[in-house]
Amino acid sequence: MLPDDVRLISVDDHVIEHERVWVDRLPARFREVGPRVVELDGGVQAWSFEDQVIPSIGLNAVAGKDPKDFGLDPLRFDEMRPGCYDVAERVKDMDLDGVHVQLNFPSFPGFAGSTFLGATDKDLATACVVAWNDFMLDEWCAHTPDRFIPMVMVPLWDVDAAVAEVQRTAAKGARAITFSEAPHRVGLPSFHSGHWDPLLAAAQDAEMPLCLHFGSGGVPDVAPDADFAVTIALFATNSHFACVDLLLSDVFHTFPRLRVALQEGGIGWMPYALERVDYVWERHRWYLGIDPDARPSDLFREHVYGCFISDTAGLEARHRIGVDNIMFESDYPHSDCNFPVARTRFAEELKDVPDDEARRIAEDNARRLFRFPR
Amino acid sequence: MLPDDVRLISVDDHVIEHERVWVDRLPARFREVGPRVVELDGGVQAWSFEDQVIPSIGLNAVAGKDPKDFGLDPLRFDEMRPGCYDVAERVKDMDLDGVHVQLNFPSFPGFAGSTFLGATDKDLATACVVAWNDFMLDEWCAHTPDRFIPMVMVPLWDVDAAVAEVQRTAAKGARAITFSEAPHRVGLPSFHSGHWDPLLAAAQDAEMPLCLHFGSGGVPDVAPDADFAVTIALFATNSHFACVDLLLSDVFHTFPRLRVALQEGGIGWMPYALERVDYVWERHRWYLGIDPDARPSDLFREHVYGCFISDTAGLEARHRIGVDNIMFESDYPHSDCNFPVARTRFAEELKDVPDDEARRIAEDNARRLFRFPR
Repeated sequence: MLPDDVRLISVDDHVIEHERVWVDRLPARFREVGPRVVELDGGVQAWSFEDQVIPSIGLNAVAGKDPKDFGLDPLRFDEMRPGCYDVAERVKDMDLDGVHVQLNFPSFPGFAGSTFLGATDKDLATACVVAWNDFMLDEWCAHTPDRFIPMVMVPLWDVDAAVAEVQRTAAKGARAITFSEAPHRVGLPSFHSGHWDPLLAAAQDAEMPLCLHFGSGGVPDVAPDADFAVTIALFATNSHFACVDLLLSDVFHTFPRLRVALQEGGIGWMPYALERVDYVWERHRWYLGIDPDARPSDLFREHVYGCFISDTAGLEARHRIGVDNIMFESDYPHSDCNFPVARTRFAEELKDVPDDEARRIAEDNARRLFRFPR
Repeated sequence: MLPDDVRLISVDDHVIEHERVWVDRLPARFREVGPRVVELDGGVQAWSFEDQVIPSIGLNAVAGKDPKDFGLDPLRFDEMRPGCYDVAERVKDMDLDGVHVQLNFPSFPGFAGSTFLGATDKDLATACVVAWNDFMLDEWCAHTPDRFIPMVMVPLWDVDAAVAEVQRTAAKGARAITFSEAPHRVGLPSFHSGHWDPLLAAAQDAEMPLCLHFGSGGVPDVAPDADFAVTIALFATNSHFACVDLLLSDVFHTFPRLRVALQEGGIGWMPYALERVDYVWERHRWYLGIDPDARPSDLFREHVYGCFISDTAGLEARHRIGVDNIMFESDYPHSDCNFPVARTRFAEELKDVPDDEARRIAEDNARRLFRFPR
């Protein structure tokens, strides 16, 4: 059972950036080309960035909606719950939802900042990353510091600038880095390339886990005529990919104190994935060029964390995963979230789990991983 | 435990085509351009087809090798165990391995015949499909009919010709069709398109399940600098994809007696996949345009079968999958196979499973699905 005194920590939520995030922070020369909200015909609001107009102002911001109304994303801020973009309202929604702490991913920038990877002017792009990080640290998290785990993004196109941004934000209290689950799928060097070693070293030194959200390395290659529900049901295949890709790379051999969290992919596939990666490693380790004595499932328990909203298969098999590698996510305000009954639903999910294990999953593991004290 | 009188049925093995498969069967005008074995410099043998030379003569034909020698595929027939390509030797290897029945996928043609999809001359390509099917039915399976489930491929580029080939081979005793797990990934219309309806109807009428082998719809999008072991460890993500894609399509609504088997992807991910697809369907079913009362996990139990070599996570959760939806695979002669101890290893795997369930998994489910009598 979930003990009443547990302060539930969600390690996967989403902030919808309000319209002044960049306008208030970018240097004057970038104000016109940086992200700003524009009004289109028909009362639609959109983001303008460089020469693009991107109308997904509230993509998937459906918290509080009836599922029968899903499929219609809000087109204006005033169609969303204010908790999507207003931190004071967010805290009220967290109180309603029974969630004490959230860790929020970006929306307009993409889960790991890949929108800015596509920018023509990379000085502008870097300024946009810095502005979002300052928004997250100085405005959003600073509003109620014990309720938000501060996470930052990095300029993906410049590994030295990424290292500098990790160090700058670590000094301001950042506790996590959002990064791509499959950088090679967004046109960047892979985890096998060595390219990211300076960043991984900086993350390890700063004790900031990499948070790899589903979709930060592309989406499943579904048929063009398949419904979006197919993609939503397949989030796990991306996390499964990232998990195995990292376990069979030399990343955790090179960085023994680096940790990663896999967001929005659930945990129920992990028992299979770990058994399978060990099976393959047993047979193929001789020519892989990695330590043939470091079993992938052992590396997993030291380095990889998962989280879930609803996953009784994973919970039942939690000892195959590692109780200390499992956390909770609420996914506010996306379509998977159970707002305003996240805690109630999660307590039902944990009803057959011993109290001490429920406490670790619901709170302690996240506090330890993100060095986020009570 | 696995009862001693169980005749173990593997639903996933591989035939390496010997050099006369097409030479002996193609019409005279196609003999020079059809698949034939040629000798290259350095003693290497290769397949010649149209204007291509394809040297993967024994790709992954490693049965009986020490894993420390993996990574070196045989380059000539005489470097392989004869059981790879000689049916009389195959039966001897099956006896050694404790496997009573096999179902064999093609090698040179690709798991579902996609090599021929790339042919310039589609009349040649269709003749190559017909020749392989006749080889499988009249030569390989006819050698010892109670030891091989006859499976055929179809001309993927012509749905009417595919229907005709299903009907022609069904009349000759074919029991299964190898097809692509993700046709849209090999440049064909998707399962959502309606394009395949005549073929699916023919398969349903002939009571021939579709066998969707890992890799018949491309391979996971791994980094170019990742080792092939990453791909091998991720076979399941393809099967997971195909399973969810089909369950959220209208295929099983339209064809209530059609069945599919997912080969080489294991089963341990299925409990998660089913729980997740139900969760997403609960929230998104209202706009999907499919029967909102047909729960995907119920469709699964009626229509989808999995198989495994070694998968204790899946076995432990077998009641979440459905004991009647699980079968055995030996994967001879690929790198996952346990030759010559397949039955011994599988019996160890089943040691905590009640005898009646072990019997269904090891033999009865495959006999029922493929209408393959004792």
